[in-house]
Amino acid sequence: MLKVPEHQVAGHLAIDGKLGPLVDDSGRFYKPLQGDGRGNKELAFYESFSSDTRVPDHIRKYFPVCYGSQLLEASNGSGLLHHLVLQDIVSSHRSPSIMDIKIGSRTWYPEASDNYIQKCLEKDRRTTTVSLGFRIAGLQLYEGKESGYWRPGRKEVQSFTVYNVRSILRRFVSSNSSIGNENSDCSFAPSIYGGSAGILEQLLELKAWFEDQTIYHFHSCSLLILFDKESVSKGSASVPEIKLIDFAHVVEGKGVIDHNFLGGLCSLIKFVSEVLSDSKESSIKDCVESEKPGICTDNGNCQ
Amino acid sequence: MLKVPEHQVAGHLAIDGKLGPLVDDSGRFYKPLQGDGRGNKELAFYESFSSDTRVPDHIRKYFPVCYGSQLLEASNGSGLLHHLVLQDIVSSHRSPSIMDIKIGSRTWYPEASDNYIQKCLEKDRRTTTVSLGFRIAGLQLYEGKESGYWRPGRKEVQSFTVYNVRSILRRFVSSNSSIGNENSDCSFAPSIYGGSAGILEQLLELKAWFEDQTIYHFHSCSLLILFDKESVSKGSASVPEIKLIDFAHVVEGKGVIDHNFLGGLCSLIKFVSEVLSDSKESSIKDCVESEKPGICTDNGNCQ
Repeated sequence: MLKVPEHQVAGHLAIDGKLGPLVDDSGRFYKPLQGDGRGNKELAFYESFSSDTRVPDHIRKYFPVCYGSQLLEASNGSGLLHHLVLQDIVSSHRSPSIMDIKIGSRTWYPEASDNYIQKCLEKDRRTTTVSLGFRIAGLQLYEGKESGYWRPGRKEVQSFTVYNVRSILRRFVSSNSSIGNENSDCSFAPSIYGGSAGILEQLLELKAWFEDQTIYHFHSCSLLILFDKESVSKGSASVPEIKLIDFAHVVEGKGVIDHNFLGGLCSLIKFVSEVLSDSKESSIKDCVESEKPGICTDNGNCQ
Repeated sequence: MLKVPEHQVAGHLAIDGKLGPLVDDSGRFYKPLQGDGRGNKELAFYESFSSDTRVPDHIRKYFPVCYGSQLLEASNGSGLLHHLVLQDIVSSHRSPSIMDIKIGSRTWYPEASDNYIQKCLEKDRRTTTVSLGFRIAGLQLYEGKESGYWRPGRKEVQSFTVYNVRSILRRFVSSNSSIGNENSDCSFAPSIYGGSAGILEQLLELKAWFEDQTIYHFHSCSLLILFDKESVSKGSASVPEIKLIDFAHVVEGKGVIDHNFLGGLCSLIKFVSEVLSDSKESSIKDCVESEKPGICTDNGNCQ
């Protein structure tokens, strides 16, 4: 019944006898509780979060539903192990394009040990975490029935530069997204990043909460962006989604906003809105160049 | 003609034969160009900034006017030295209360040397920089004609905790601000922090620019808040001011927003708005308790 998740783009994978998360067919995601206390910290976060009445309902949708913990056979064959039981947020998508973005210009928290801080800082400086306030931790891009997914390896992802990140945010919403294509058309930007239910609006809703909430500080937490390219290509309604995951390093906010997460989120918002406005400009240009008598609509199409 | 500034609350002081800034009676502030390149970097910033047409006019008022550089006798007697000639932003105030707040959860920049980063990081962790996204670098509080100013020493300022910062932001706008008084009345909060020309509105205007601008990253830059308590006490119009200063560590933004500054600014905004809303609540309570038939106005007074 339990199997290795097909669409996991970052983190430990349950392959080659290693410990990793599992999924079932009913839409649940089983994440092994890591032994060093991180697993219990994440479980404690979900328990605190789910009962905290200060968290508004419109914010809860950005978090996976948690169904508690359960003893299961671990994927590495080590026997029974406690697993966090979560909503499998990918299960409702047929061929999802997914980006895992670790938010914040530092992934460590003030209370951590010097060793841990130095380790994180070194990686934060090596990736775009310090410069951008976020880094891409993994992704898969659905390219079509024949070519399948583009899923760069861990080493490639960790070497992404600011230039790469900008380019990937464009490719993510392009119909011509295959590797080596520098002229991403961003044709899905208006329907995925834009619109009243699009990624940008969702990011802005999250931002408004982070400007105010002083309950939690989300260190080393990831923001997933996911959508179904095939549905969009076919013109059927597809709602792009944002989910926050990985809460092993959440600490109490103690009356202070999570300025580290908020800063990174604002930086991501700026990038996404630039892709969106570029795509609108280029579609206006296309309309003019095609000498169509029509006008360009808000979603970037010619009429 | 040149003298030691009376109201300098942070940085190197031109006393005891040391090198520091000087002022004259015409409202100019002369800052010695530091020999290690920092002085020239700050001068270069002012030159670039003053001619950059991308900076909107309503943002320029948050920066001191720069009149170039000038050779002057240094305050430490070492002879002629280049000085940055700036607007003396304090000169228009008679008895200014001033807070110097270093913005950002890190004061170092990615391109700096490992040694420099470790030195900054150590201080950022020791102060409230990492936890709050800003730290108070110096302040003076006008307490009245008899008691004069409260100006804590450098060591005391560097030991400020989150609790101290919150308390000082309250004392800063209180009529009963003397040391040891835990029950700051925040009676000037509505007129200094609040209102359409108040500190909070100015901070929000600055924030809107930082959400968009990708020209500069302001590392280790300070935000000054200053106002004239005496004028406010007497009920005369006094416009509280915000100025950004110290640009020796500004680097190019290269198309990325300054998420480090923005995050810290948002954290400060949250603190200031809490003082303001607390003061409104307590003035409503006062009105009710005094059994006055009147209502509480927006600026926190009973009518």
